[in-house]
Amino acid sequence: MTFPVVGMVGGGQLARMTHEAGIPLGIRFKLLSDTPQDSAAQVVNDVVVGDYRDLDTLREFARGCDVITFDHEHVPTEHLRALEADGVAVRPGPDALVHAQDKGVMRARLDAIGVPCPRHRIVSDPQDVAAFAGEGDGFPVVLKTVRGGYDGKGVWVVDSVEEAAEPFRAGVPVLAEEKVDFVRELAANVVRSPHGQAVAYPVVESRQVGGVCDTVIAPAPDLDEDLALRAEEMALRIAKELGVVGHLAVELFQTRDGRVLVNELAMRPHNSGHWSQDGAITSQFSNHVRAVLDLPLGDPRPRAKWTVMVNVLGGDYPDMYSAYLHCMARDPQLKIHMYGKDVKPGRKVGHVNTYGDDLDDVLERARHAAGYLRGTITE
Amino acid sequence: MTFPVVGMVGGGQLARMTHEAGIPLGIRFKLLSDTPQDSAAQVVNDVVVGDYRDLDTLREFARGCDVITFDHEHVPTEHLRALEADGVAVRPGPDALVHAQDKGVMRARLDAIGVPCPRHRIVSDPQDVAAFAGEGDGFPVVLKTVRGGYDGKGVWVVDSVEEAAEPFRAGVPVLAEEKVDFVRELAANVVRSPHGQAVAYPVVESRQVGGVCDTVIAPAPDLDEDLALRAEEMALRIAKELGVVGHLAVELFQTRDGRVLVNELAMRPHNSGHWSQDGAITSQFSNHVRAVLDLPLGDPRPRAKWTVMVNVLGGDYPDMYSAYLHCMARDPQLKIHMYGKDVKPGRKVGHVNTYGDDLDDVLERARHAAGYLRGTITE
Repeated sequence: MTFPVVGMVGGGQLARMTHEAGIPLGIRFKLLSDTPQDSAAQVVNDVVVGDYRDLDTLREFARGCDVITFDHEHVPTEHLRALEADGVAVRPGPDALVHAQDKGVMRARLDAIGVPCPRHRIVSDPQDVAAFAGEGDGFPVVLKTVRGGYDGKGVWVVDSVEEAAEPFRAGVPVLAEEKVDFVRELAANVVRSPHGQAVAYPVVESRQVGGVCDTVIAPAPDLDEDLALRAEEMALRIAKELGVVGHLAVELFQTRDGRVLVNELAMRPHNSGHWSQDGAITSQFSNHVRAVLDLPLGDPRPRAKWTVMVNVLGGDYPDMYSAYLHCMARDPQLKIHMYGKDVKPGRKVGHVNTYGDDLDDVLERARHAAGYLRGTITE
Repeated sequence: MTFPVVGMVGGGQLARMTHEAGIPLGIRFKLLSDTPQDSAAQVVNDVVVGDYRDLDTLREFARGCDVITFDHEHVPTEHLRALEADGVAVRPGPDALVHAQDKGVMRARLDAIGVPCPRHRIVSDPQDVAAFAGEGDGFPVVLKTVRGGYDGKGVWVVDSVEEAAEPFRAGVPVLAEEKVDFVRELAANVVRSPHGQAVAYPVVESRQVGGVCDTVIAPAPDLDEDLALRAEEMALRIAKELGVVGHLAVELFQTRDGRVLVNELAMRPHNSGHWSQDGAITSQFSNHVRAVLDLPLGDPRPRAKWTVMVNVLGGDYPDMYSAYLHCMARDPQLKIHMYGKDVKPGRKVGHVNTYGDDLDDVLERARHAAGYLRGTITE
């Protein structure tokens, strides 16, 4: 057998779905997971349980792999550099990944290559936040820890110098950003391989609830064609300039005055690309595997006029399986994707995809199913 | 977690692809495999290595499962009855599965419910074969061992009483059948759940080479609508009358005079249904899982006008992975499904699916990819 071994660091749902996508390609999939119960560890054959913050663990894991890639951005950059120095194929590599790990580095780099971002700078204390506010339209200001934030964690919207104290308590660098007056959030998902091939998925609309992605509509409805093209080109350019290998999600603000500004970057399969599992010719997970192996990429075009993804969050009712009866009987075309996670209120435990020609219908079906699984819809 | 455990007996590619289809449903998948290297054992987390012919092994395996189902038909019927007596949910159950295990039982039952089959009877020796030939149009006659045959194994087409000696050498019961003057082979795939819901996939054309399935076209081109409907109804009726739970493949001969006759039955996901992974709204594997769990079934309708599956057989060249570069670059829409098996000449090691609006193009793409992977096409 000459089929390669892809090692993925992190046992979350992205690794679970990457494994699922790798099975038909016949590749071997090896997982470094925090616990044997993690989402991906439940379904992968070759699981190493260990701490991704420990370099020796990473080195030992990497020895059994032809390439290593990531379920999350939390592996210390210096460990990734050490692995690269050992000769391990790390994809995306640390020089790229640091831009998804450190928002300060990311903003500086995007400024340097002329990609439009919200007004921003690193701030040192609440007074400095007030100064930053004064340089623009005043409060509110968005404050973010430069490392470690996701899904609304590590992000504060502050209305005064008093409120600006909280983010500094952890003693980590803080980035201030203008609160963008956006019409909606978009995401441009692209995949790039080491030899430079890249594909762009259609730009999607991403709706957040409480800082957490709730609904993704592919493609983004009523999006001006020029703006869509500009967003795709911007994502392709970021992937190239930053040397990204694998999936890159560029989260964008669409402003009232018709611009797109980069909000966040993620260098791994991303929630805004889950629709592609059932709505695109090649899913983001399949293309991520192909990219890290430097295989030719698959066609990213949609298979349906509209595809909608709605996240399933944990609610008060722990038994989601019993909801399958209703959801599947009501909608025989529904696509359920559950992660094997215990239900905790607000935790992402799965998502549903629906597709079709009528956006209202597709949206209603996805929302109904996700709400019924969560327990907020009971009929 | 209230999600059930589905146990599958047999570690072949059907179990591998059933696991893949089960991952998004969040179910737990447990495998009884002959070896840790079997196709499915490579990708499943919870693998028991053991002998499916041993009742104690089966009993121990079944204790950890909410339902057990099968990758193949080789588990002894009496063991399945013992498991059922223990209270295990065996799906399909032995009373159904025996019809896919024993061609004599199958023919007798189909006769009893009035389903058209080739002329047939159990024969006792070569002279009896000659008598059977004489009762019809003479030689050639098809002889089959009633148990254990597949992919052309255990099947002989004999032209004389002398040639008829071979099948009797093993000392097992032999079924004689007329050699049907067929136009082509079709397959009607249906899925049925314990509470009686059933879905029918479009009837497909199945082309064999050397007794082994080579190409499947979905739906069967130029198939008379009435005949297609009759074939689907026949398969649904067989599923109901025999009490099948899960996937049922009914392999059919389309005769020159416009009839369909049942050739074989398989009660598991089937090679003639692999196209559904990329060509149907719900794949046969996903619907098999849903059926054995008594969940509502998914929509079996096609997503594309034409879907073609071509099997990848082992050739002289063992390194199929290096062929990925050419195949993926040539056709970004190609769907490769490899089974993790070592390449041996003639062995089914994978399949490819293609889909689109132009059948000639879809056929050419699938044939090219399968031939290139096998090594019979080199440009």
